[in-house]
Amino acid sequence: MVTRRSFFNGAGLAVAAAAVHKASLAALPEIVSAESAHMRAPLQPPDGRPYRPVATLNGWTLPWRMRNGIKEFHLVAEPVQREIAPGMKAHLWGYNGQSPGPTIEVVEGDRVRMFVTNRLPEHTSIHWHGQRLPSGMDGVAGLSQPAIKPGETYVYEFMAQRAGTFMYHPHADETTQMAMGMMGFWVTHPRDPRAMAVDRDYVFLMSAYDISPGAYTPNVSTMLDFNLWTFNSRAYPGIDPMVARLGERVRIRFGNLTMTNHPVHLHGHEVVVAGTDGGWIAPAARWPEVTVDIGVGQMRALEFTASAPGDWAFHCHKSHHTMNAMGHGVPTTIGVEERDLANQIAALVPNYMNMAGDGGAMADMSMAMPLPENTLPMTGGEGPYGSIDMGGMFTVMKIRADLAHDDYRDPGWYRAPKGTVAYRWEGEPPPAARGGDPRKPA
Amino acid sequence: MVTRRSFFNGAGLAVAAAAVHKASLAALPEIVSAESAHMRAPLQPPDGRPYRPVATLNGWTLPWRMRNGIKEFHLVAEPVQREIAPGMKAHLWGYNGQSPGPTIEVVEGDRVRMFVTNRLPEHTSIHWHGQRLPSGMDGVAGLSQPAIKPGETYVYEFMAQRAGTFMYHPHADETTQMAMGMMGFWVTHPRDPRAMAVDRDYVFLMSAYDISPGAYTPNVSTMLDFNLWTFNSRAYPGIDPMVARLGERVRIRFGNLTMTNHPVHLHGHEVVVAGTDGGWIAPAARWPEVTVDIGVGQMRALEFTASAPGDWAFHCHKSHHTMNAMGHGVPTTIGVEERDLANQIAALVPNYMNMAGDGGAMADMSMAMPLPENTLPMTGGEGPYGSIDMGGMFTVMKIRADLAHDDYRDPGWYRAPKGTVAYRWEGEPPPAARGGDPRKPA
Amino acid sequence: MVTRRSFFNGAGLAVAAAAVHKASLAALPEIVSAESAHMRAPLQPPDGRPYRPVATLNGWTLPWRMRNGIKEFHLVAEPVQREIAPGMKAHLWGYNGQSPGPTIEVVEGDRVRMFVTNRLPEHTSIHWHGQRLPSGMDGVAGLSQPAIKPGETYVYEFMAQRAGTFMYHPHADETTQMAMGMMGFWVTHPRDPRAMAVDRDYVFLMSAYDISPGAYTPNVSTMLDFNLWTFNSRAYPGIDPMVARLGERVRIRFGNLTMTNHPVHLHGHEVVVAGTDGGWIAPAARWPEVTVDIGVGQMRALEFTASAPGDWAFHCHKSHHTMNAMGHGVPTTIGVEERDLANQIAALVPNYMNMAGDGGAMADMSMAMPLPENTLPMTGGEGPYGSIDMGGMFTVMKIRADLAHDDYRDPGWYRAPKGTVAYRWEGEPPPAARGGDPRKPA
Repeated sequence: MVTRRSFFNGAGLAVAAAAVHKASLAALPEIVSAESAHMRAPLQPPDGRPYRPVATLNGWTLPWRMRNGIKEFHLVAEPVQREIAPGMKAHLWGYNGQSPGPTIEVVEGDRVRMFVTNRLPEHTSIHWHGQRLPSGMDGVAGLSQPAIKPGETYVYEFMAQRAGTFMYHPHADETTQMAMGMMGFWVTHPRDPRAMAVDRDYVFLMSAYDISPGAYTPNVSTMLDFNLWTFNSRAYPGIDPMVARLGERVRIRFGNLTMTNHPVHLHGHEVVVAGTDGGWIAPAARWPEVTVDIGVGQMRALEFTASAPGDWAFHCHKSHHTMNAMGHGVPTTIGVEERDLANQIAALVPNYMNMAGDGGAMADMSMAMPLPENTLPMTGGEGPYGSIDMGGMFTVMKIRADLAHDDYRDPGWYRAPKGTVAYRWEGEPPPAARGGDPRKPA
Repeated sequence: MVTRRSFFNGAGLAVAAAAVHKASLAALPEIVSAESAHMRAPLQPPDGRPYRPVATLNGWTLPWRMRNGIKEFHLVAEPVQREIAPGMKAHLWGYNGQSPGPTIEVVEGDRVRMFVTNRLPEHTSIHWHGQRLPSGMDGVAGLSQPAIKPGETYVYEFMAQRAGTFMYHPHADETTQMAMGMMGFWVTHPRDPRAMAVDRDYVFLMSAYDISPGAYTPNVSTMLDFNLWTFNSRAYPGIDPMVARLGERVRIRFGNLTMTNHPVHLHGHEVVVAGTDGGWIAPAARWPEVTVDIGVGQMRALEFTASAPGDWAFHCHKSHHTMNAMGHGVPTTIGVEERDLANQIAALVPNYMNMAGDGGAMADMSMAMPLPENTLPMTGGEGPYGSIDMGGMFTVMKIRADLAHDDYRDPGWYRAPKGTVAYRWEGEPPPAARGGDPRKPA
Repeated sequence: MVTRRSFFNGAGLAVAAAAVHKASLAALPEIVSAESAHMRAPLQPPDGRPYRPVATLNGWTLPWRMRNGIKEFHLVAEPVQREIAPGMKAHLWGYNGQSPGPTIEVVEGDRVRMFVTNRLPEHTSIHWHGQRLPSGMDGVAGLSQPAIKPGETYVYEFMAQRAGTFMYHPHADETTQMAMGMMGFWVTHPRDPRAMAVDRDYVFLMSAYDISPGAYTPNVSTMLDFNLWTFNSRAYPGIDPMVARLGERVRIRFGNLTMTNHPVHLHGHEVVVAGTDGGWIAPAARWPEVTVDIGVGQMRALEFTASAPGDWAFHCHKSHHTMNAMGHGVPTTIGVEERDLANQIAALVPNYMNMAGDGGAMADMSMAMPLPENTLPMTGGEGPYGSIDMGGMFTVMKIRADLAHDDYRDPGWYRAPKGTVAYRWEGEPPPAARGGDPRKPA
């Protein structure tokens, strides 16, 4: 069992106590921050009602202080630096050191008190999306509370009335603040830990950024032309894989805070949407799907049984959302033979890249182009069979008959197994028709 | 009971009889027009089968003439002036004086005759979206009828076979005509007034416009980059609030005639989609939601029980759709310190606005920028706790334990209660951690 | 019964055997290609388990070779020329001569072997979207297999485990390759031909292209601003109509491989989504709709009973998606009187078109503008009552009490009946209020 102290010491989190007086230490819960985009082991609850924790992709769960039966959390809205993927960092706004902020996990019936400290250069607020609560706690600046000014700490308090899948985000200058990465996941576990139980429970939020090649700060007024599409402010190959043992029931919960729908596709399995931020869906009302379309401001709890071993792609099915920057809006030269043309265009168009001029296309470009500093290639990821032509909202669901860590209380349980296994037909293998094979046309 | 004559006299509607001969008066129903964007009291049916009327946000219901058992309506397609919100008017095309046109309310089994007069500078037609009718009445110009030329009056006639939620819009040069605001709501009430009965029933259509700052007429060829996102051609703070008494069952019906999905989010309550333009959904097949994503050309009848008092935000969850013009596509200067930069950029970029150069962002801009004539600020709305940073597709659902007008036949029943109440935790109030509070970090 | 040989000879398909040796002929199934965008008669299965075939709009089904109980298909990825509609051809990438590739039809439990020959200038792979299969057969280049290099033939083999609606597309440089038109439909029929049986079963895929006026090759880096919205790489008026006899049960299956949702609307009838690529939906869980919104990477099997005779529009409800090129992003001059303005703007803006300068709008423009070579007018289609102002994703569902061909094994069964019938009110006809009619306002 991971204790709270060892969790703080051992998991890369820092207690940012320097700026807080002794007096305020007594009143405010300590500030726990994350310094990196590494996934932390799920937080085993040290007190309060028991529950089985979720795993946050490239993220972590915020510890609380139990005080007079109330769970007290301390969120700090502040500028952060987020590694989008190895090779690129973004200057975002987030909570407690990272964007998105930490996941909040409580239990149905818990009374919770959220201290929110504003270290941003402008006012903010937090809306507890999907919760039943008094309207004065709802977080809409101007309507249900005054905005929280820079330097202030505001306190929200309500009971977690309904088990389910939620999120939190600002409701003050929210276009700017969500475009800068301010958001976090919230799970209210059922009072009975056996209710709606699954073997694996992953969570993440979808966000999009428009960061010009070579720049660090998003353009916050972009409405449509985003160039970075992320799960938890990470782009492939920077996104954690998900792991399950063959036969397990798996839940993946996600929310969408971009500006467009995302059709989330799992290979090799059928899934159902078992719940939304509005509650659980009666089994008879669920639709079998392989691609779940999620609207903006919606949350989905997708479920499936890990029935086939192997490495299965899990991604947004909009093809541009599985590419990183510099793949959108450049001229096409497929079918163009003249080698001079690319040079002529390059003299006119900044960042112009010749696509398929020699019979190649984006796949070749990704390798060949020199990139500006702090810019991801369009696609990346090394697979067992060569480069994987994907970026952005893409990761892999790894299903194995045997896993080294299969107790969810073991800190290693969520770690990806080494190597990648693509299982083929069980009987005679199909012919690998390559090289000098007669089936290859002349 | 409001009579038809007193309704005409008392509710700001004008009978535009001047241009109609005596001869035609006998044949055509009189033209009833609206001159403003104020919400009218729901139209109590003076004859025909009884029903409980709907309330149209910033709109009204068209009176009919009962003739030989047929309900005759007269729609006039024409250029109109629509106030989008106080401070901005748009030159649109609509019906009977406004965009959208008036709501049509009939009863299942009614035989209806729609006279459509074209006062536009080009041909038009009307498609009665979602209705079962003879294909010759379906309104697709060229396919099911000749287009209605300028100056002509065309007559549609069919039986309202199916109770439910519908709309009408042109099906001739429809990209232009819908981009100009031509659309209207249609409700067919069930033959049994107790069927599917609710306490409050609100209706509106969603439309989007691209009107350059300072201009009056939409750019009708815009496919994606709209800058005004509206409910019934109104943007917040110009949109009517909705009202309900605590415990009432509320229905909100809406249709989408923009070019993208809109995820409609209600705070503090779970909702279901109880019906579509295709019919009512069996209760067992409904999903609990807090955000209902509506596709283009779809209609949704959302329902919920008003279970918590207060002022609850109701809005599209795409953050740019709760902003008005001038918030999209401008450079970001978050983190930029040099004061000169803004001036340099401003010399290069028309309409450039410095965002957050002094540590502020959009929220500050809205207040500080001088606006061109006839342009809404990005966000607006005065709340009890200061400015509400919202525009566009945003309004408020006001739920109260007591209402001054709680009989739906009372013309005041839909009027918003004065003031805004944000209810807080019932027990001890949470500490308002402000000012000299020790919880405020140094 | 159409035999395989007569099918090849009679249906416009060519056996491209020239480039294949005798040796390889023994190992590889012959390559069957289509040379035009004409719809072929559904392929009656010559061997294997019986099933009732589907009809592919402007497409065809690939014949197979039965070998040792395995159905062997041969797909060739290659550059193709596709007629988008009469008057415009596009240079795309596809399979076996056309884009999209041929439909694959197999039966639940069939063991299938897919030979894929790459004749593109870059590597590729095929992902069998929605299928249960060994992960090594899943087609993600780099992850589950090496990419198929130009000139190579790769072999996939798996059992069609689940009856339903599927598609295939590349999973290597897929943004480019799907933007170039690489995709195809796949139907796995149930083992029991009576299961889920309907009278008519139509299939197509939705794709979008950005081809500049006068050009032939799509811009493959476009993320949003497409100008051609197609069903099976065809735009109206080039899309086949669908046909049904009054009272028949009709299924229309479609998949979306564009970059945005498409709300598919049928006039005059209510529909249900009876299945997805994830499986069939329990009848109690279906929603009545008139507009079905399909996300990217999703498939929908829509069903309805053809209950009303006539010609019924069937189209995407996003108005710009029922227009062809040159209708998006040009200035509006509605309300502008000066005739000189258009000339002044035209001098500044390439491809500028005056819209409604004389009181007309897009509808007039379509007729009046000289078009660049190889460019479709914005809208087209001659109807019985004049021009139909539609393009792109639009076609017509023709429902008749009597059809010349009503046995699905008759090659003519899918052919559109001659002429167009718009049925009107059965009783007294509504007055056609035109010309000198007193109902026409002065």
